[in-house]
Amino acid sequence: MVKIKIYNTGKSKEPWLIAALAEYEKRLPFPIEWKLYKDDNSLYTAVAKLPSFIALDPQGQSMTSENFATFFEIHSPRHILIGGAIGLPPPIKAKASHLISLSPLTFTHQMTRLILLEQLYRATQILKNSNYHKK
Amino acid sequence: MVKIKIYNTGKSKEPWLIAALAEYEKRLPFPIEWKLYKDDNSLYTAVAKLPSFIALDPQGQSMTSENFATFFEIHSPRHILIGGAIGLPPPIKAKASHLISLSPLTFTHQMTRLILLEQLYRATQILKNSNYHKK
Repeated sequence: MVKIKIYNTGKSKEPWLIAALAEYEKRLPFPIEWKLYKDDNSLYTAVAKLPSFIALDPQGQSMTSENFATFFEIHSPRHILIGGAIGLPPPIKAKASHLISLSPLTFTHQMTRLILLEQLYRATQILKNSNYHKK
Repeated sequence: MVKIKIYNTGKSKEPWLIAALAEYEKRLPFPIEWKLYKDDNSLYTAVAKLPSFIALDPQGQSMTSENFATFFEIHSPRHILIGGAIGLPPPIKAKASHLISLSPLTFTHQMTRLILLEQLYRATQILKNSNYHKK
């Protein structure tokens, strides 16, 4: 099964976050690989070498969960970059195939990882028309 | 210190969520009281009796974290209703003093509780100009 790689800086340290991410990873029908770099420089250097990636960025397109599910189905993203609250460096922004904003609110990296996994899971449930999204 | 009461349906069952909420409650400079009802009917009956409340609703105003902090400072909300994904019943919507949307995305009730606490904490940090929001 095709893996989704998520690029971000910093480890997931809080035990609650590790447990929450593990819960959603277990539910997802595809594996997640975390590519966690020690600083922004090494993160962006690695991402710049990818042939294609989408990025979460405050300037990105905002979407409903249904839009995100459709986007996910059409584009099948394999590499997702979680950018910082101040936004991506212009060359990285220009290279991203799509920019998506999860919310006008600012979240911690940690919270963004969890929201992203929950929305990926929600997308799979919307696409198979399960009850998860309707509750 | 003035307490903030948060109204929603269903208990927080997942251990990771209980731990995450406890972490943010510990950091917040004011106490949180959870008013969790067994169904929407009892939730809305209770909320309808409040003299004033704000509500999270998909049709609400979307805000940046800075806007939310300013809102929080000006209005000092004491009662916050977390509405469902399908939106609030019209009489409750009409009675709310403000409607706020956290994101165009749909989240679980559980996730919404966590995002709300993190944004309340972030608001306190923005207002005291700490580093939390700048990282």
